[in-house]
Amino acid sequence: MYGAAQAIAAGVLSGHVGLLVSMEETGYTGGKTHRLTTLLADWNVAKAKRIGASAVKLLLYYRPDLKDIASRQLDLVTKLADQCIEEDIPLLVEPLSYPIETEEHYFQEFAKLKPHLVIETARQVTALPLDVLKAEFPADLNYEKDEGKMAELCQQLNEVSRVPWILLSAGLDFELFSKEVEIACKAGASGFLAGRALWQEAAQIGSRTERMRFMETVSAQRLRQLAEVASAYGTPWFSKLGADKDEFTPITQEWYKSY
Amino acid sequence: MYGAAQAIAAGVLSGHVGLLVSMEETGYTGGKTHRLTTLLADWNVAKAKRIGASAVKLLLYYRPDLKDIASRQLDLVTKLADQCIEEDIPLLVEPLSYPIETEEHYFQEFAKLKPHLVIETARQVTALPLDVLKAEFPADLNYEKDEGKMAELCQQLNEVSRVPWILLSAGLDFELFSKEVEIACKAGASGFLAGRALWQEAAQIGSRTERMRFMETVSAQRLRQLAEVASAYGTPWFSKLGADKDEFTPITQEWYKSY
Repeated sequence: MYGAAQAIAAGVLSGHVGLLVSMEETGYTGGKTHRLTTLLADWNVAKAKRIGASAVKLLLYYRPDLKDIASRQLDLVTKLADQCIEEDIPLLVEPLSYPIETEEHYFQEFAKLKPHLVIETARQVTALPLDVLKAEFPADLNYEKDEGKMAELCQQLNEVSRVPWILLSAGLDFELFSKEVEIACKAGASGFLAGRALWQEAAQIGSRTERMRFMETVSAQRLRQLAEVASAYGTPWFSKLGADKDEFTPITQEWYKSY
Repeated sequence: MYGAAQAIAAGVLSGHVGLLVSMEETGYTGGKTHRLTTLLADWNVAKAKRIGASAVKLLLYYRPDLKDIASRQLDLVTKLADQCIEEDIPLLVEPLSYPIETEEHYFQEFAKLKPHLVIETARQVTALPLDVLKAEFPADLNYEKDEGKMAELCQQLNEVSRVPWILLSAGLDFELFSKEVEIACKAGASGFLAGRALWQEAAQIGSRTERMRFMETVSAQRLRQLAEVASAYGTPWFSKLGADKDEFTPITQEWYKSY
């Protein structure tokens, strides 16, 4: 959300790109092993709609196995989803799994748990009326090297997700992310939403000129490359919802009266 | 407004074009010589914002010399302008002058009155908090042939308009409209909004193939030509408002709290 109004006011947002704004406070309350998402104070879906946002995003820390916390997190999604329906703006939810034990040896255990966590989260979260799931890759590439297995896990995620889903980058190295996007799209994902995987190296470049050159060349090329992968293998959002592009419900002349 | 939801649902609206939707009932009440604009029932600015409109349009029959009717028309604009501020969506108002006597000989009189009517209308209507004036050309080209005089009238219109203004085509022959756009833009207009001047001949073509070909060739070329004229001579909207593109008010990090 930081920078949305500035980007609009400076006129740097090209008219053909959508604007996705976040609703949550950065971080979490409840402690590192029991994370609760908080909405930004003095900010809401109606305001996002008013500034001209194309869609709304909620980052949601989520552990399906922590029943009490998970239930409160789902309540938050429901509340936001109701507001999004009221304002007729799409809601994208980005659940993030996290380790709930802090011992060193646990991290390898967490990597093993990850497929189950990500898939179960997709099942629980997409039962709510949201529009797009921004999902983690359902495997940790530091531990899982079998592409056949990765594809199978993505297919499982695709089966349980009731809405179109896209892949988040989590700041992964670009080449690895690119591989993930291809596997996910072939398994039913509708695309990706990448940030750091595209530009993280630029943040380390001290010279503004060099930094901008990196963004304009390397980052732009990475984005084009991922877009080609998604276009080639991804599932259109309407297909995921069981619709045919040429068979949308016909709209009557008096649609606006009951809208 | 007719077709807005259909165009959205069919996916034929390119992402880089804006969607302007109208708020008024077609036609007028009050009689041919005392025209009152009525808003569409069961339709409003909030709904327009919800469907994703970029701006809202009001066609307003207007005779500044009919004080009582004019006052009621201005009340309607004020009401709509308040709703547009509430929803943070731009309001474009399109006042149309009209003859108030029906005798044959009066039409030449009306042509003589037109410059005064259009300019006085611009003065009265733009005193209200709207964003763009869609103005008639302040002369009837069937009677006024002096381009210097036309330029002078457009400058007068520009001086009294407190907001950016664009020219409407009123179904004028394309070549004449193109001339008007050039004169208006050189006098301070920010562009044009053309419908029939671009495609009216197509409506007479029976064959769908031929009709589409006309739109794709002649109409598209006309639009490109007008856009070039407006880009070359028009005044940017922010300049008309006295702002410099690089000097917009800075936006604070906590802008959303008071938005």
